[in-house]
Amino acid sequence: MSGNFFKDNKDLQFYFERGIDWATLVELTEHRFRCPGGPASVTEAVDLYRDIAELVGGYVAEEIAPYASEIDRQEMHVVEGDVAFPPRLKRVFDGIRDMEVHGLCVPRELGGMNAPLVLYFLLAELFARADVSVMTHHSFHGGMAMAMLVFSLREGTSRVNGETGEIEETRFRGAMEEILRGEAWGCMDITEPDAGSDMAALRAYGEQGDGGQWYVTGQKIFITSGHGKYHFVIARTEPAASPDDPFAGLKGLSMFLVPTYTTNADGSKTWHATIDRIEEKLGHHGSVTAQISFERSPAYLIGERGEGFSYMLTLMNNARLGVGFECIGLCEAAWRMASAYAAQRPSMGKMIDQHEMIADILDGMQTDIQALRALCVEGAYHEEVHQKAALALKFATVLRPDERSELEGLVRKHKAEARRLTPLLKFYGAERAVSMAQQCIQVHGGVGYTTEYGAEKLLRDAMVMPIYEGTSQIQALMAMKDTLMGALQRPADFVREQAEARWLSATSSDDLERRVFRLRLLRLRAVQHLLVRTAGDKVKGLKDLPLTAWPQRFLKDWNPKKDFAFAMLHAARLTQLLFDDAAAGLLWQQAQRHPDRREVLGRWLERAEPRARFCLDEILHTGDRLLAKLRHNEGSAPNA
Amino acid sequence: MSGNFFKDNKDLQFYFERGIDWATLVELTEHRFRCPGGPASVTEAVDLYRDIAELVGGYVAEEIAPYASEIDRQEMHVVEGDVAFPPRLKRVFDGIRDMEVHGLCVPRELGGMNAPLVLYFLLAELFARADVSVMTHHSFHGGMAMAMLVFSLREGTSRVNGETGEIEETRFRGAMEEILRGEAWGCMDITEPDAGSDMAALRAYGEQGDGGQWYVTGQKIFITSGHGKYHFVIARTEPAASPDDPFAGLKGLSMFLVPTYTTNADGSKTWHATIDRIEEKLGHHGSVTAQISFERSPAYLIGERGEGFSYMLTLMNNARLGVGFECIGLCEAAWRMASAYAAQRPSMGKMIDQHEMIADILDGMQTDIQALRALCVEGAYHEEVHQKAALALKFATVLRPDERSELEGLVRKHKAEARRLTPLLKFYGAERAVSMAQQCIQVHGGVGYTTEYGAEKLLRDAMVMPIYEGTSQIQALMAMKDTLMGALQRPADFVREQAEARWLSATSSDDLERRVFRLRLLRLRAVQHLLVRTAGDKVKGLKDLPLTAWPQRFLKDWNPKKDFAFAMLHAARLTQLLFDDAAAGLLWQQAQRHPDRREVLGRWLERAEPRARFCLDEILHTGDRLLAKLRHNEGSAPNA
Repeated sequence: MSGNFFKDNKDLQFYFERGIDWATLVELTEHRFRCPGGPASVTEAVDLYRDIAELVGGYVAEEIAPYASEIDRQEMHVVEGDVAFPPRLKRVFDGIRDMEVHGLCVPRELGGMNAPLVLYFLLAELFARADVSVMTHHSFHGGMAMAMLVFSLREGTSRVNGETGEIEETRFRGAMEEILRGEAWGCMDITEPDAGSDMAALRAYGEQGDGGQWYVTGQKIFITSGHGKYHFVIARTEPAASPDDPFAGLKGLSMFLVPTYTTNADGSKTWHATIDRIEEKLGHHGSVTAQISFERSPAYLIGERGEGFSYMLTLMNNARLGVGFECIGLCEAAWRMASAYAAQRPSMGKMIDQHEMIADILDGMQTDIQALRALCVEGAYHEEVHQKAALALKFATVLRPDERSELEGLVRKHKAEARRLTPLLKFYGAERAVSMAQQCIQVHGGVGYTTEYGAEKLLRDAMVMPIYEGTSQIQALMAMKDTLMGALQRPADFVREQAEARWLSATSSDDLERRVFRLRLLRLRAVQHLLVRTAGDKVKGLKDLPLTAWPQRFLKDWNPKKDFAFAMLHAARLTQLLFDDAAAGLLWQQAQRHPDRREVLGRWLERAEPRARFCLDEILHTGDRLLAKLRHNEGSAPNA
Repeated sequence: MSGNFFKDNKDLQFYFERGIDWATLVELTEHRFRCPGGPASVTEAVDLYRDIAELVGGYVAEEIAPYASEIDRQEMHVVEGDVAFPPRLKRVFDGIRDMEVHGLCVPRELGGMNAPLVLYFLLAELFARADVSVMTHHSFHGGMAMAMLVFSLREGTSRVNGETGEIEETRFRGAMEEILRGEAWGCMDITEPDAGSDMAALRAYGEQGDGGQWYVTGQKIFITSGHGKYHFVIARTEPAASPDDPFAGLKGLSMFLVPTYTTNADGSKTWHATIDRIEEKLGHHGSVTAQISFERSPAYLIGERGEGFSYMLTLMNNARLGVGFECIGLCEAAWRMASAYAAQRPSMGKMIDQHEMIADILDGMQTDIQALRALCVEGAYHEEVHQKAALALKFATVLRPDERSELEGLVRKHKAEARRLTPLLKFYGAERAVSMAQQCIQVHGGVGYTTEYGAEKLLRDAMVMPIYEGTSQIQALMAMKDTLMGALQRPADFVREQAEARWLSATSSDDLERRVFRLRLLRLRAVQHLLVRTAGDKVKGLKDLPLTAWPQRFLKDWNPKKDFAFAMLHAARLTQLLFDDAAAGLLWQQAQRHPDRREVLGRWLERAEPRARFCLDEILHTGDRLLAKLRHNEGSAPNA
């Protein structure tokens, strides 16, 4: 295989060349060009990013993709306490190190390239298209170096030059440099045997020795790339306030950095933690999933006691965005593999890509990939802008009042947008990664079920997407709660949005615009129905009051587990509607500026409209029977 | 694991005890009790069937299911031209042989139990719930013995006692006895490297030696259980009449029985064909998928030259029904595994099966399994009744004229019904086997992605269901064409069905009945729309004529590839609608006789109604863009 996964991708090129507001990103990243040694202009910066993307695009196409099945076959095991890298994987990661991509987003003064996060995410798609497990393990290098910097900035252990934005000192500098040299990587240890999505149930604990030194004890499971040196470990340092409130437990969690080993002068390792085992997984074989035990392992507290959950949240959006791009990469691989096969497989007198049902499958794959990419790129942009604007606000000493208030505006707007889009793209990206891998097998027919073409590997790899970094159900719950609470807290906005959508869907002279806003009306109607039903279940008579009068009545005496039952039942359906509407909105924005994007929007609307009507239909007409059954169970069964 | 997969299944018990018209089946199977040595009454026969089902239900639960992951790990390979059985699989099949289940449906006078096919299918579900690959390989024993008998009866090489129905002589008796003794099995060799769904492209050929002996040459791929002794091989004996007509090639195919080896006196085998390799598959590891080459292999023509395709069709419905029951078994395993895990996994203060979204998934699984079972049992019943009635008509010499005309009626009605239901149950069964396996993984969360709980194995096993025995796309095309041609050939019936559905959906005093017929109206509306669009594309002006005037105009100058393009694009959506409606109809019939089945029907309608509206919506509002693109391609690209 020879090629370039960046250059051969027209839709990705659209974003790179026309769809991304690089100016804002470069200005924030380069501190308005006050940072020495950096590019002198936006153009110069983007030229550099393009060079990097083309370099990586060629590397993944020629050095990773052709070996994906070899990587898949070489499962890793624990040998004498350590995990040995198979030769192919070692070669792949040596190459990544040589391109210096581990330091992509790390500031120049710390040895990196100081590129925007958005570029990191675009490259993540390229890696994932070649092999998702390589992309995953890769992300635990530079991503963890950045986590160290972000955590240090947050806790106040970095010194930043207020004029140039340069990092003059940072707490984990040595570890970051190790990572950039390709000698170490980090991971995030959260899940435990009895606590997956339910983080308040975590039981690993941190305790202090006489000298104030912290120690962590406990077992962590499903630790991706957990065979490395640096572990961010969440552990309990304070008992839960009330055993009855499952959320109280979150406040007793702290974040630690735990090195699992120290390298001795002779190159041998002294271990401070034990890798109990490597999970045997369905796929993702280039990425280790470890179970690890800490037994009074020396640990370094990050931030304050009890801030662990909050520190974890800092990076959660980034991680979920990463999965979004990972899903796009896998989808792109599935679509291209299926298209290539269908274009050369004859049946009944023509190639099968000209058979209606196969053409429909391929068209749906392409369209959904484009919608996913629209949301992911937008989500990454919002995430980066709000994070960098917040850092500038915190550290820049040279800001004029108007610059400060502009930055504050950026933080508010982009943080909310990143939070809105992230669960949607994680949800639909993961669902679609699975179904596109499946469709890729189906298009191949019998050979798709064999190991020969690699289609089945895509499915095995895809199946973890709806599970890790927050299951699809967790994403749906987050999206649903944010949406409903948002409408309750700002009912005037909700009403205004409805009025606008109603007006434009009826009066616009542009057919596509009318359709975009008709789709939005479906989403708004679903939200309203869920609000009415939730309210109806909570307060009799509330639904007869105007929406603007609800919040104070509604937000009192809240029991999140019970009051939202109807909306929780339909959370996945609502999330699908939210995705469909959000993608239409973004593609419509693109189409207004770039008429050649109208074609993508048209295809998307054709796919999204009936599905959105379907989701609304299910929300409006189903669920009562099941809820009644669950309420009945609740009355009769003891709680766990 | 201890238990009984027959006794623990309430829905299956419903069919066995109340839902199956055993009287008709027993009368046909036991030739109105004129056959000596058989049960003396329907009750006696059903008691015997129950004993068998309980025996097998216990066997699969205790001797197969606990070893499913062991069977999965032991892939088979070609060693010195043969394929060695792993020890566990050998033990499993020795046990099946000892229960004498290989002869379940074989007439008593040939060494079997003479049980109805319907019982065979019910047992197939039990086997599949334990391990689908064991079920599959199992089916190539008794199923192939029955194929030998059916083929011999059809070609006139069996002698049947016209009074008792006993088989006095049959061509393949020796082979059948080998199979019953567990010493051999058979398989069906159709697919070739360049001919999967497109059978007219088959290239293996049969030729006659000087003495009239036939020889077969060619390569066959994806041969399930193709490592056995007896191969039914489809091979070309006549050249295609016209190379331009892809369907003409079907008439040049003949059916052969080819023994791949002869066992010598010393127990060694002399091979007449070569197993080139065993496919490395995603799952189904207890079932061998072989590639096999014939090089002037001695062969025995079945029936007449050119009847090969028609002989294959004889058994195709049986095979697809078998996959339907296989899918139910896998779904049942997935649902039970997910339910059991969710019932003991606490999160956020309760077991996760009490979380709304998980409860919704489990409820949907249970409901769809019940709908699938309704269609499969009904389909199997129709298939058996029409096959056995046809045999009685052909061989019974003692029939009174009224008995003869009754049998003729049975054949007509039940053959059409079996043909109608089979593609629907194969289509939806396979789709749901895949999605239920996926849901089972999702309910397990992280551990579902590991090999520990067996959830991932279910998905790997399920992925072949939508591919083999005719892909989901082929099922959809068959269902669509039968439906549309049926409406065109009997427009009065179609109009009457619409009128009835409209009347009952509006006037019935029973809410469930109204909903059943409202659902039917959606299906009828989809069919009508596809007819109108197909007609519109074919003959301008046709849609202005009444439907009853269409056939003669419409059926002239037919080009099946082009004229049906719009309907082909939507064939899968139509098939989903057909399934949803058919299941509602069957569950409604049950509910009228057994009020306790109203609850199942209610659940089914709640699931099916929005989905049916969705499918209709897509049929009504999408597809033109893609068809225009395909037509454009057709103009510009040469045919394959």
